[in-house]
Amino acid sequence: MEKSIVTPWEVEGEIDYNKLIKKFGTDVLTDELLDRIKRHTGELHPFLRRKLFFSHRDLGWILKKYEEGEKFALYTGRGPSGDTHLGHLIPWIFCKWLQDKFNCDFYFQMTDDEKFMMRPDLTLEQTHAFAYENALDVIALGFDPKKTFIFSNIDYAKTLYKISIQIAKNVTTSTAKAVFGFKNSTNIGIVFFPSVQAAPCFLPSFLNEKNVPVLIPAAIDQDPYWRITRDVAPKLGYYKPAAIHNMFLPGLEGPSGKMSASKSDTAIFSVDSPEEVDRKIKRAFTGGGQTIKEHKEKGGNPLTCTIYQYLYFIFEEDDEKIKEIQDGCKKGEVFCGECKTLLSDKLVKFITRHQENRERAKDVLDKFLLKD
Amino acid sequence: MEKSIVTPWEVEGEIDYNKLIKKFGTDVLTDELLDRIKRHTGELHPFLRRKLFFSHRDLGWILKKYEEGEKFALYTGRGPSGDTHLGHLIPWIFCKWLQDKFNCDFYFQMTDDEKFMMRPDLTLEQTHAFAYENALDVIALGFDPKKTFIFSNIDYAKTLYKISIQIAKNVTTSTAKAVFGFKNSTNIGIVFFPSVQAAPCFLPSFLNEKNVPVLIPAAIDQDPYWRITRDVAPKLGYYKPAAIHNMFLPGLEGPSGKMSASKSDTAIFSVDSPEEVDRKIKRAFTGGGQTIKEHKEKGGNPLTCTIYQYLYFIFEEDDEKIKEIQDGCKKGEVFCGECKTLLSDKLVKFITRHQENRERAKDVLDKFLLKD
Repeated sequence: MEKSIVTPWEVEGEIDYNKLIKKFGTDVLTDELLDRIKRHTGELHPFLRRKLFFSHRDLGWILKKYEEGEKFALYTGRGPSGDTHLGHLIPWIFCKWLQDKFNCDFYFQMTDDEKFMMRPDLTLEQTHAFAYENALDVIALGFDPKKTFIFSNIDYAKTLYKISIQIAKNVTTSTAKAVFGFKNSTNIGIVFFPSVQAAPCFLPSFLNEKNVPVLIPAAIDQDPYWRITRDVAPKLGYYKPAAIHNMFLPGLEGPSGKMSASKSDTAIFSVDSPEEVDRKIKRAFTGGGQTIKEHKEKGGNPLTCTIYQYLYFIFEEDDEKIKEIQDGCKKGEVFCGECKTLLSDKLVKFITRHQENRERAKDVLDKFLLKD
Repeated sequence: MEKSIVTPWEVEGEIDYNKLIKKFGTDVLTDELLDRIKRHTGELHPFLRRKLFFSHRDLGWILKKYEEGEKFALYTGRGPSGDTHLGHLIPWIFCKWLQDKFNCDFYFQMTDDEKFMMRPDLTLEQTHAFAYENALDVIALGFDPKKTFIFSNIDYAKTLYKISIQIAKNVTTSTAKAVFGFKNSTNIGIVFFPSVQAAPCFLPSFLNEKNVPVLIPAAIDQDPYWRITRDVAPKLGYYKPAAIHNMFLPGLEGPSGKMSASKSDTAIFSVDSPEEVDRKIKRAFTGGGQTIKEHKEKGGNPLTCTIYQYLYFIFEEDDEKIKEIQDGCKKGEVFCGECKTLLSDKLVKFITRHQENRERAKDVLDKFLLKD
C-alpha cells in the first residue's frame, strides 16, 4: 500500500481508516452507539448504517446530555476555495438529518480567511465570493432557517475574534507546530488560524450565554482542530466539543485519495450540468475487469470501485439491491456499464433537484447568515 | 553601563539612543529635517526642539508628500494594561500638535486583544475596560473629534481582521521570530498580533479608498512592528508607513528604564491625585548630591536627574529658565528641593487640568470611536 497522508490540507494515497483512528486517537463508532442513536431517531441514516461515518470523539457523552434533556448544537464548515463537490456534501447531508432528528441548531463556518491565507493564487475577494456560492449548496439541502447559522469568517470576524483570542492565549506555537506540522515558512495568519476554526465550538455557548454541547460531523482530516479545541475547552469553562468523522469519498479516478476541488475531473460538482455528470461517471475508475471477457471470468472488485462506493455510501439505499450488485460484480455477472448507468441516473436526478434548490436558496440566503 | 533591553515588551537598563538607532536601523532626526518641519509649522514643538523625538523612518518622504499636496494621517496606540502614565502621553501630546499643524486625521489603536493574550493575569473584560479608560486620556488632550478615530481592537475586529490577514499572509513565522524573538512557548495569538498592530498603517488608505501616507509617532520600542509593516506594504500596494520615535521618559526611581504601568511608584499616572503627584515627585530620584554639603561642593548631574529631565522634556519650555536650572545644578547653586517644587507645581497644574478634561471626555467619548 502507498504511503498515505492525511492532514487538514492534504489527503493522498490509499487510506487505512483503522490506522487513522489510532493516529488521531479517536474511537470506533460501535454498533452499540448506533443502536443508542436509533433509539432516539427511529431509524439510522444510511451514512451510519453503511459506516461512512466510522469514528468519533465523545459521541456517547453527547447522547447522554441529550438523554438528560440538554440539546446539542451541530458545527461543521467548508474551506471555500472553489465549487462544492459531492465529498463536501457528505457531512452537510448528515447534519441536515441530525438537525431534523435531534432538533439541533446548526452552525456553519466558511473559512474564507484561511483559504485566502493558505492559497497564494486566491484573493480575498475570491474566497469570500466562494463562501457565499458554497453557502447556497448548504441551504439547498433543506436546513431550517430558524435553526441554521452560516457565517463567513471575514464577515463574522468581530464575534469570532473575541472567542479566538481566548483560545489562542492557551495554545503555544510548539503545540500548533506539533499538531499541524507548521514550519518556519508558514505564515503567521495560518499559525493563528486553528483558534479561528476552534471558535465556533464555543459559539453556541457564547451566543446563548450557557454551556451548550456541540457535535461536529466532519471528515476525519479536520480532527486535529478538535483535539486542540478539546484541550483548551476546560480552561475557558466550556464543554469539550464532540465529533463524528466520515471517510472520504474516493475521487472519480480511483481509490487513492479524496475528491479534489482543484482537480475538476476527480469530482462531481454541485454546479456540473447533467451531461457533465453523466460524462464524468461514464469515464470513472471502476473495480471491473479490463475486458468483458476478463470480467466474466474473474469478476470485479467492488471494494476498489468508485462507482460501487458512490452507490453503497449514498445513492443506493436499498440493502438487497446493493447486495445484488456486490455479489453480481464479484461473480462477473453485473457489468460496469450497468452500474455506471444506475449511478448516473440517480446522480443526475440528485444534481438536478439540488440545482433547483440551489437557485431558490439565492432568495433566502440572508435568512441563514450570521454577520456582525 | 548595564546591558539594556529594548523590545516592545521590555525596556530596561540605561539606554544608549545612538545604539538604538543602529540596532533598529532607523535615521537620526537631523536639524535639517527639523527646519523643514518648522517651515510648515512656524515653530517647533518642545519635544522636537529638545530632541525627545530623536529618530525616524521616512520623515523626509512624509514632508515631501505634504509639500506635494498629499495629506498624511497619524497613527499611534496604547496597550491598555492599566492606567495611563506620563510616558504614554508623550507621543499623544505630539500627535495633537501634529494634528493641529498639519491638519491630520489621527488613528488610535487600543491593543486590548494583545494585552489580554500577553498577560496571564488580565481578563478580556479588564483590558477592554482599560481601553476605554485610556481613551479618555487621549481625548483629554484636545483632539478634534471630526479627525480623530480611536478603536479597541476587540470592538473594531471585523475591519482590522480583513486588513490583518492580508498582512499575515506575507509574514512568515521565521520573520516574526527573528524580529520579535518569539519562542515555541509564545502563544499563537501573539504570533499573529504583529499583523493586527500593522493593520492601522493601512487603515486610512482602506477607509478612504486611496493611498494615504501615514506617520507613526511612538516610542522606539515599537519600531519592529513598523519594520515588518514596511516590508509588506509594497506587496499590498500601500505606501510604507513613516515613523518618528521618542525616547523613554525615565521612571521616578531613576534613569535605568522607562515608567512602568505595573510599578505604581515609578510613574505619574493621569488619575493620581494632586497630593499623590506631589508625594511621588518629592520622593523621586535626582541627580543631586547625597547631602546639601556635597551638592554645594561637587554640584549635581542634570543628565541623570529624573526631575531635570521631566522639566527639560515637558514642563519647562523656557530655554533661559532651563539653562539657569542646568547651570545652577552643576554649580551646586540650585538644589533638588527647588527643582522638585517647581516640577511638582507644574505637574499638579497639568494633572488637575487633564483630569477636568478627562471628566468631560466621558460625555464625548462616542464621537471619537470607530466600531464595526
